[in-house]
Amino acid sequence: MPYVNIKVTREGVTREQKARLIAGVTDLLVEVLDKDPATTFVVIDEVELENWGIAGVQTDVFRARKKAAAEQ
Amino acid sequence: MPYVNIKVTREGVTREQKARLIAGVTDLLVEVLDKDPATTFVVIDEVELENWGIAGVQTDVFRARKKAAAEQ
Amino acid sequence: MPYVNIKVTREGVTREQKARLIAGVTDLLVEVLDKDPATTFVVIDEVELENWGIAGVQTDVFRARKKAAAEQ
Amino acid sequence: MPYVNIKVTREGVTREQKARLIAGVTDLLVEVLDKDPATTFVVIDEVELENWGIAGVQTDVFRARKKAAAEQ
Amino acid sequence: MPYVNIKVTREGVTREQKARLIAGVTDLLVEVLDKDPATTFVVIDEVELENWGIAGVQTDVFRARKKAAAEQ
Amino acid sequence: MPYVNIKVTREGVTREQKARLIAGVTDLLVEVLDKDPATTFVVIDEVELENWGIAGVQTDVFRARKKAAAEQ
Repeated sequence: MPYVNIKVTREGVTREQKARLIAGVTDLLVEVLDKDPATTFVVIDEVELENWGIAGVQTDVFRARKKAAAEQ
Repeated sequence: MPYVNIKVTREGVTREQKARLIAGVTDLLVEVLDKDPATTFVVIDEVELENWGIAGVQTDVFRARKKAAAEQ
Repeated sequence: MPYVNIKVTREGVTREQKARLIAGVTDLLVEVLDKDPATTFVVIDEVELENWGIAGVQTDVFRARKKAAAEQ
Repeated sequence: MPYVNIKVTREGVTREQKARLIAGVTDLLVEVLDKDPATTFVVIDEVELENWGIAGVQTDVFRARKKAAAEQ
Repeated sequence: MPYVNIKVTREGVTREQKARLIAGVTDLLVEVLDKDPATTFVVIDEVELENWGIAGVQTDVFRARKKAAAEQ
Repeated sequence: MPYVNIKVTREGVTREQKARLIAGVTDLLVEVLDKDPATTFVVIDEVELENWGIAGVQTDVFRARKKAAAEQ
């Protein structure tokens, strides 16, 4: 009876990619814990870049900094 | 001090239906656990059909399969 | 396909009270949104009093203050 | 490795306010628990007023009642 | 920067099974969405059977009913 | 009416540290968004090290690897 919540940044995840995430997570739960797919839920949340913080800053700032550091 | 999160698929839930869910859950917590409504939160999330998986597939696919099976 | 998460403070909620919460929330979703109980999940989390904050303080402090104010 | 989820009502929270929330929560976790900012996530959810219930009613109704009571 | 929360019933999931869930979900996010494992979190919650409801009843009751129906 | 959920690894967070997290987050929401502390909830979840994954492995494995790398 698993419930899985996947949060990713909202940047054009396609319907087909979501289908692969749902199928993949469900298969994993069947394989590892012998769960019944019929009662396995997977809910995907897409979060705006400015609503997701890491290292104390918003995701786009974080990525820009990382890229700048890599280029030095 | 309860916090309740209700996740349903996004398919035209009306303001009035949301009001009934909020009132109903709050009443239930008062009745069963004698909670104070003043400090009871209910948050409703509406999830796109393609973001909700069950039985390893997206909700619309799941429903189409179920309907096809029922019609046989 | 609803998923409901109920968070309450951990203070001796009985198995029977949990059963009533689960039945009550499921009935409500059937009644208001015509959801299928077979694919309705309700998960109850019990949270330690010292892990739940309201009004900037832990729940037991909050209650003690409220009681003291009521007695004045 | 903290993960923090902040849910607020959706009413025009600016990018700059979100940045302050993310920085503030991250600093707090560093200060109180000596957590590493590099592995600290903060996710902000903005919830429609009609999807948030308190005291058994939707947020806008709750506020209107409170305002009316204050004016009496 | 994904965050994944897996909720399963608490019934003796081993450390090794948890490791396989964490590795499997992380691999899936790399494969489908090209995410960076370094900033991928997976949090597993184990929920008591009496705290998880499905079809309006607690999980153990649900399973007993299902088993009884299968034996008829 | 904010609701904040803080998830950290379970490793001896004291009651006093939890109080500081609750006060700090509540103050931040008052300061940045002018929220009412009376309707601000903060819930802290403590997660076992083996239930938290990062970079595809459990937290203790992740830390051991990081330490080994730092020592080289």
